[in-house]
Amino acid sequence: MRWLDDGRPEARAELDALYPHTGNAYFIGITGHPGSGKSTLVDAFIRLCRERDLTVACIAVDPSSPFSGGAILGDRVRMNRHALDDGVFIRSVATRGNLGGLSRSTPASVQVMDAMGFDIVLIETVGVGQDEIDIVRLADTNVVVMVPGLGDDIQATKAGVMEIADIFAVNKSDLDGADRVVREIKTMLSMNESADDEDAWIPSVLKTVATHQEGLEPLFEAVEAHRDWLQAHRSDRDRDRQRIEQLVRLVISGEFDARIGRLLGTDTWKSHLEAVLDRTETPYEAADALFDEIF
Amino acid sequence: MRWLDDGRPEARAELDALYPHTGNAYFIGITGHPGSGKSTLVDAFIRLCRERDLTVACIAVDPSSPFSGGAILGDRVRMNRHALDDGVFIRSVATRGNLGGLSRSTPASVQVMDAMGFDIVLIETVGVGQDEIDIVRLADTNVVVMVPGLGDDIQATKAGVMEIADIFAVNKSDLDGADRVVREIKTMLSMNESADDEDAWIPSVLKTVATHQEGLEPLFEAVEAHRDWLQAHRSDRDRDRQRIEQLVRLVISGEFDARIGRLLGTDTWKSHLEAVLDRTETPYEAADALFDEIF
Repeated sequence: MRWLDDGRPEARAELDALYPHTGNAYFIGITGHPGSGKSTLVDAFIRLCRERDLTVACIAVDPSSPFSGGAILGDRVRMNRHALDDGVFIRSVATRGNLGGLSRSTPASVQVMDAMGFDIVLIETVGVGQDEIDIVRLADTNVVVMVPGLGDDIQATKAGVMEIADIFAVNKSDLDGADRVVREIKTMLSMNESADDEDAWIPSVLKTVATHQEGLEPLFEAVEAHRDWLQAHRSDRDRDRQRIEQLVRLVISGEFDARIGRLLGTDTWKSHLEAVLDRTETPYEAADALFDEIF
Repeated sequence: MRWLDDGRPEARAELDALYPHTGNAYFIGITGHPGSGKSTLVDAFIRLCRERDLTVACIAVDPSSPFSGGAILGDRVRMNRHALDDGVFIRSVATRGNLGGLSRSTPASVQVMDAMGFDIVLIETVGVGQDEIDIVRLADTNVVVMVPGLGDDIQATKAGVMEIADIFAVNKSDLDGADRVVREIKTMLSMNESADDEDAWIPSVLKTVATHQEGLEPLFEAVEAHRDWLQAHRSDRDRDRQRIEQLVRLVISGEFDARIGRLLGTDTWKSHLEAVLDRTETPYEAADALFDEIF
């Protein structure tokens, strides 16, 4: 799907043509800090889906490794493990370093996976940036992976990540402090305004040890329970609307990033910078002028 | 400076008027994962600056706490400690949850601090998102705080963070594994393409124990060494250009975020979403139309 990155007109036409074939996959987001064992958990989850004859596509949105620009090693290992299984499709996308923002191709890749007919589309992120939170908002069910012993875990976890969680998996729960993390999550949830709303989904909090395949069945059941809850409480159209809205936002932002990328380093861009340096323009005046230039 | 958030015309006029008074502060970025002890390090660093009669403004870009929407507790404690010292100014800004992106006021706040005449402007972030990397790119010298025992630290640290580091501080270096982290950073640096360039700055790698004020003097000296290196190798105008370019980009992105925020939920927005749900438009066609609407 690398062609999606190039922004070629064929790619766009392809995506338009694919759209009627989308809307059948169930989207699951899995988000966890580096070191949370998220990749192992995803791997175990994929195996569980396969045992149930569900096909799975997984897109891993990961920071690039410092100098290679490629995906981190774990994903390569994982991809090799499932390499011979047609029912599994894994793609790693690096978050872009320099120009900022999510790879433009990510939302499109998710759509392609859906159109390809996979039962489950997993979106895996380290959940540390706004871009990543934006991408997992495409998911129907979001699992947030916590882990004992990462300092003041919950206080430090990005607010957006806590807000999207439908299910908390406290992984590495054979380590000291797992019960404390469970307790803290439950305390936090009880302070949530919607805790008193009988119709609201109360996020489940589960303990897992992904390396030993422990707690995976309950995790799968929790995802199913959330899916049932969604079906009982929201129309298909409402759920689709939420995803489509997020997708459209991501496509618009991607277009903006692409345009600002093309403007950088042009003579127009440079002349405004020099004007600011000469103090004949303020940075805000330059930004206004360049903003108009983009469109 | 809350008025900066409102996007009022007065605020903009104020910023234009302030611009000629900027350009005197030295900007230092301090970036570290949650749990790295970064806040304690910043606090110790501020005290060191004060001992040298340097005034310090610090802007802490932090995730909001899950439900309060406010700054995390540590910053409050820190602000109280320096509350009676006119030579210290600390402001916490929460990263915005819902609409995404950095608070629009952050780059403007940095400019105001500069215009206020502080000798040092510290920009403190958890360095986990692109937005935060974008903001510390405003700094002249960037310190990245690492810590032993956070799993596969270096592999997992966002590439952008590694790339901006002028100085690595391995904090909590009284813990096991500190030397390993130092070694890993040095190995990584030696693989960097610019390692063979004699004129390039080779990032310093230092050990600190901020809670015991250990290693802070060498950290301060490393910042000064980098400042000297910049003065020897880059003209003032080049350094200013770099910061101004980043500032202009942030202002443009902020304007885009504000405009897309105003479009969300309007009738135009909704009618395109319904068209996509009715499959009379694809998400990409809707995005195109809405993109044009923004400008």
